[in-house]
Amino acid sequence: MLTTQTLKFMKKLVAEFIGTLWLVLGGCGSAVLAAGYPELGIGFVGVAFAFGLTVLTMAYAIGHISGCHLNPAVSIGLWVGGRFDKKELIPYIIAQVLGGIAGAGILYLIATGKEGFSLSSGFAANGYGEHSPDGYVMVSALVTEIVMTFMFLIIILGATHSKAPKGFGGLAIGLGLTLIHLISIPVTNTSVNPARSTSQAIFVGDWATSQLWLFWVAPIIGAVIAGLVYKFISPETE
Amino acid sequence: MLTTQTLKFMKKLVAEFIGTLWLVLGGCGSAVLAAGYPELGIGFVGVAFAFGLTVLTMAYAIGHISGCHLNPAVSIGLWVGGRFDKKELIPYIIAQVLGGIAGAGILYLIATGKEGFSLSSGFAANGYGEHSPDGYVMVSALVTEIVMTFMFLIIILGATHSKAPKGFGGLAIGLGLTLIHLISIPVTNTSVNPARSTSQAIFVGDWATSQLWLFWVAPIIGAVIAGLVYKFISPETE
Amino acid sequence: MLTTQTLKFMKKLVAEFIGTLWLVLGGCGSAVLAAGYPELGIGFVGVAFAFGLTVLTMAYAIGHISGCHLNPAVSIGLWVGGRFDKKELIPYIIAQVLGGIAGAGILYLIATGKEGFSLSSGFAANGYGEHSPDGYVMVSALVTEIVMTFMFLIIILGATHSKAPKGFGGLAIGLGLTLIHLISIPVTNTSVNPARSTSQAIFVGDWATSQLWLFWVAPIIGAVIAGLVYKFISPETE
Amino acid sequence: MLTTQTLKFMKKLVAEFIGTLWLVLGGCGSAVLAAGYPELGIGFVGVAFAFGLTVLTMAYAIGHISGCHLNPAVSIGLWVGGRFDKKELIPYIIAQVLGGIAGAGILYLIATGKEGFSLSSGFAANGYGEHSPDGYVMVSALVTEIVMTFMFLIIILGATHSKAPKGFGGLAIGLGLTLIHLISIPVTNTSVNPARSTSQAIFVGDWATSQLWLFWVAPIIGAVIAGLVYKFISPETE
Repeated sequence: MLTTQTLKFMKKLVAEFIGTLWLVLGGCGSAVLAAGYPELGIGFVGVAFAFGLTVLTMAYAIGHISGCHLNPAVSIGLWVGGRFDKKELIPYIIAQVLGGIAGAGILYLIATGKEGFSLSSGFAANGYGEHSPDGYVMVSALVTEIVMTFMFLIIILGATHSKAPKGFGGLAIGLGLTLIHLISIPVTNTSVNPARSTSQAIFVGDWATSQLWLFWVAPIIGAVIAGLVYKFISPETE
Repeated sequence: MLTTQTLKFMKKLVAEFIGTLWLVLGGCGSAVLAAGYPELGIGFVGVAFAFGLTVLTMAYAIGHISGCHLNPAVSIGLWVGGRFDKKELIPYIIAQVLGGIAGAGILYLIATGKEGFSLSSGFAANGYGEHSPDGYVMVSALVTEIVMTFMFLIIILGATHSKAPKGFGGLAIGLGLTLIHLISIPVTNTSVNPARSTSQAIFVGDWATSQLWLFWVAPIIGAVIAGLVYKFISPETE
Repeated sequence: MLTTQTLKFMKKLVAEFIGTLWLVLGGCGSAVLAAGYPELGIGFVGVAFAFGLTVLTMAYAIGHISGCHLNPAVSIGLWVGGRFDKKELIPYIIAQVLGGIAGAGILYLIATGKEGFSLSSGFAANGYGEHSPDGYVMVSALVTEIVMTFMFLIIILGATHSKAPKGFGGLAIGLGLTLIHLISIPVTNTSVNPARSTSQAIFVGDWATSQLWLFWVAPIIGAVIAGLVYKFISPETE
Repeated sequence: MLTTQTLKFMKKLVAEFIGTLWLVLGGCGSAVLAAGYPELGIGFVGVAFAFGLTVLTMAYAIGHISGCHLNPAVSIGLWVGGRFDKKELIPYIIAQVLGGIAGAGILYLIATGKEGFSLSSGFAANGYGEHSPDGYVMVSALVTEIVMTFMFLIIILGATHSKAPKGFGGLAIGLGLTLIHLISIPVTNTSVNPARSTSQAIFVGDWATSQLWLFWVAPIIGAVIAGLVYKFISPETE
């Protein structure tokens, strides 16, 4: 029989699964389905808002259940920053990756309902060098993903701090992800989230799989540094 | 003579009527009047914000009167989720459909004031197959409308839960509808709302009427599943 | 010598003056300076956000001083709805019109610093018929301005009601004005505000002056109806 | 050994450094990397949101640490308005300028990873006359920067006043900066922030350095006037 505590933890994992599914379906989905529609398409501005709004909406919908991480780098950064329990880390990451893959699966199912769809050009994988949307080299991609994830975690750690205005965290964090996409889609197609990158690489395979390491390593480095830096600038709280 | 309770219920129905009128006039209106304006037009990004902002503005304006559903699928999902009284369900749905039709009527009145307007190409009906904006087959449309409405209800049920931050529900729900449009306009012209679809089909007739069933069935399926799923992941509240 | 009460009223008028200056400089300014910039221009989406954000920013900056009306139709609608004192009405309207003209003057000063600027094509006056941006007839313009102002006042009266969530009024009202512009710029260039229309007509003259009556009459009609309707649907408050 | 007070002040300076780094990397970065991307680029609308969202995100993340000025003109305006201690002014400005330069450095590192990048056309310096994006003369630039910074400080002083709704300041101020960019990018590329202008001029040199004076003088004039005006319209607070 399930204990109350086990049930509560299962709810968290289901929430993370659904939330990351939504992040991938909403963010990558808007890119795949709507960005390049002739004349009326949403472009990078629309994709940036879509990614950010997946997090904003989930922050208010499931934040009180699981904390709404939706991202292995976020879970790791919160753990380094002293805000998340180590023993929940691995299950959270697994739920996030599986949720991301489920979101990509639904997107694949929808996208293939249009004649002429092809995975090679038509999915939202992250890449560098010749697979960077605007041709940026690997060093640019590394710096971008490290710095963007660093700032994402500074926003998360700061806006959810006990001295920050109550309730506004989801707004700041969601729009922070929008901002990160407004800056960096041309460089790497923007990851800052290993679960999101993995979900697309599994479908695209090939180059997307062989470049996937960067989108685990760089976001985690950025998140760890942010966890340490925020500890220093954080106001004492009793 | 009206009792206090009857009067209060009538106020709710008037609020739902006005709110759904606004959803259709604002959302479909922006699509019909402003999306394709040469060079300066608002495109799908503008339409997505317009739909979302109709709900955001009404959430704060009439949320304290009727709960601001504006959508039969939302009323059904809230009922399944245990948040809405069954005996108000049918009157709410009728008020929503009538409000939607009134909004479409005002839009029609405005739109016909421009030379060359035609209902067949110029209204914002939902469709699939050859009537999908980007040519998606019926299965894609079904999956899209079910999943999008499912997530819309997860956002609504979560962001209005007693443990969610107070006051932010209207923001999350409105911008959630924006997000849903950023993803799915190319697939079905985005419904997730049978009242919105009906209001346009009544004016366009023909194919829009014969495809209307999907935009009742799919949103309701998605909403019902969300009502059941959210009950499972919802934190206990005493 | 000034009494405390006179001083307090003067502060309100200065606040309304500055706020309406900002509405015209920001909203019309974005249209005149930035909408049509080649390739990178902000289009109607940008103009819609600019108008809305002038009101959103002022709502939080001066709402606690003057109530942040910035619009004669808003002041009249609030008066009809029982939220604004009749004896402050005329001075408020004068401050709003003067503020709007000052904003237009600053915009004119900036805009003439670019070679080739001309008032006839280059200002943001409201119009109908051959002066409607997309060629809508006068009836469309009348319906649009009445209905849009009606809904604007419903949003204002509802979102500032004592039962609405505290603090979110400025957000809902500002983004409500964004929504109104997303829908109706092609019809009348969107007024819903006689002070805004007057400020542009004074500089453009000619047709803009002779069509100005509609942008006083229609918004006021819409506002008055909203004041009466909201009284009916408003929840009792003790 | 560091005293508690010294440590607290150092935290503030580090927060201002990181925040201004983010303002320049996010705002100028979106302009340099993403604005002009073929067909899907974010344009001035995207850049305007990016600048605003850097401030919005930092307001919630570090507002409770340093007040989140990120801008010498803001620090000066707050000092004139009686909200900021004179003895912290110079260290704040130094931290802001250094943070801005660090942000520009990171942007430079990323941007040079694309073949064909050149500083002369590819950075986001502010300018007037032949270096105004749309060819506006110096007087237009002066008026624009003075008035825009004046209004920015009115928003800041008003939205953080003790009588304004709690917690919404960061939203109003961030979106206020978005609004300012929607209006004025074509005139001066929008500064209202001497640290932002300096960070770009240091890399671009040449004309950007010789025009830099205006982007210190005009924002400071606007901020000082706002500090004085807001004192007059501010409601008494006990």
